[in-house]
Amino acid sequence: MNYRCIVQYDGTRYEGWQKQKRTEETIQGKLEKTLRKITGEEVQVIGAGRTDAGVHSLGQVVNFHLKGRWKAEELETALNGDLPDDIALKHMETAEERFHSRFSTLEKTYRYRIRTSTEKNVFERRFVWQYGKSLDIEAMKKAAAFLIGTYDFTSFCGNKKMKKSAVRCISGIEMKEIKGELQIDFTGDGFLQGMVRILVGTLVEVGEGKRKAESIPAILESKSREKAGFTAPPQGLILVSVRYEI
Amino acid sequence: MNYRCIVQYDGTRYEGWQKQKRTEETIQGKLEKTLRKITGEEVQVIGAGRTDAGVHSLGQVVNFHLKGRWKAEELETALNGDLPDDIALKHMETAEERFHSRFSTLEKTYRYRIRTSTEKNVFERRFVWQYGKSLDIEAMKKAAAFLIGTYDFTSFCGNKKMKKSAVRCISGIEMKEIKGELQIDFTGDGFLQGMVRILVGTLVEVGEGKRKAESIPAILESKSREKAGFTAPPQGLILVSVRYEI
Repeated sequence: MNYRCIVQYDGTRYEGWQKQKRTEETIQGKLEKTLRKITGEEVQVIGAGRTDAGVHSLGQVVNFHLKGRWKAEELETALNGDLPDDIALKHMETAEERFHSRFSTLEKTYRYRIRTSTEKNVFERRFVWQYGKSLDIEAMKKAAAFLIGTYDFTSFCGNKKMKKSAVRCISGIEMKEIKGELQIDFTGDGFLQGMVRILVGTLVEVGEGKRKAESIPAILESKSREKAGFTAPPQGLILVSVRYEI
Repeated sequence: MNYRCIVQYDGTRYEGWQKQKRTEETIQGKLEKTLRKITGEEVQVIGAGRTDAGVHSLGQVVNFHLKGRWKAEELETALNGDLPDDIALKHMETAEERFHSRFSTLEKTYRYRIRTSTEKNVFERRFVWQYGKSLDIEAMKKAAAFLIGTYDFTSFCGNKKMKKSAVRCISGIEMKEIKGELQIDFTGDGFLQGMVRILVGTLVEVGEGKRKAESIPAILESKSREKAGFTAPPQGLILVSVRYEI
């Protein structure tokens, strides 16, 4: 049976989504370990997005197959009871056999939160980048418009050894100012490693007046990581939602 | 010069407000150390409420005296830059010489957050008690009504060696249900050590049907800690505000 659910996590203390040999502290690792404990089965958990170390999730979607037959609700309760406080499962359900949380994805939305107010916020500090300065948001919106569409995003890829296609389609970049922070929502059919954070770093350099909005097309064309901006810190990033064909 | 400001903190990793010999990890200790570093003066920082280990603050008020003359705003910026991310100062100003953040207090308001929903909330988990069951809130409101007024609260005091008067006046206990949680606001002229958390534990036992609302007067009269309920965990508690004569 194929099971599907949403996983929410505070990624602060984890080495990212993907299981690693050198550490148990990954979200995938914790989920597989807990599933093994509860069901007695060796399970591979597939996630829609492979979030980096320190990145959070509100709407990560996962799926996994079990030989045993569990009621979705009972499985969710058992797993939540055993998972650490910073990982929670929601909306567990059985899925069609062919559902694959990564390959079946249509679009993902990531949100990046930048605190522009100089006032420290001690309660939200794990989930925002405490930038502490104002930004020229009109210039950033102008720059963002150049990023909408289908491009080779090699310049915005954190993995220099990437051999697969770096072509992705970004369908939306929305900016909202809320109570001393700037929230940027990125929606696209997929994102390369570190891509959202490099996009944010580049947009922030535009907002600081260090780059012109009009420089974006040349960065894309260069296909060179060095031409883009710095990588914004992980704590401001959260995987908000994943969309599938209904 | 007498300075006054608000201190906000995520108390998770601290041993409470009050300075201790055996550890540096207290809010008062951190503030005094940072003041010493910035101003070169040995400073005693007075807090309105001596919050316990793991308890948070939104509106704790402190005051301290400095020999040097600092502009309030510059002092605030310098201190915030040096304090850890989980402590922040707000609204620094100079105060009248006789202002004392503890003795000048009229009333304090503490909020206790109980998550009654079974759904885990990974983002708020440091600031709520993940209770995970429903409660009979009408019964709790009935019980709370018996606690309003001026009483000897010895039965609700966590310090068995207390020798001073345990008489306090509670002027309000407000309960609100918001998105899967119950918030209880306690307002009074002062609270004994552990008092809010023991009040919460006792009210929860009423909400679970283990005690009757009508049992509260007998608990107060007994002046015996054993008659009251358990001590609710610290992470749900936050010092919301402190009121002074204008």
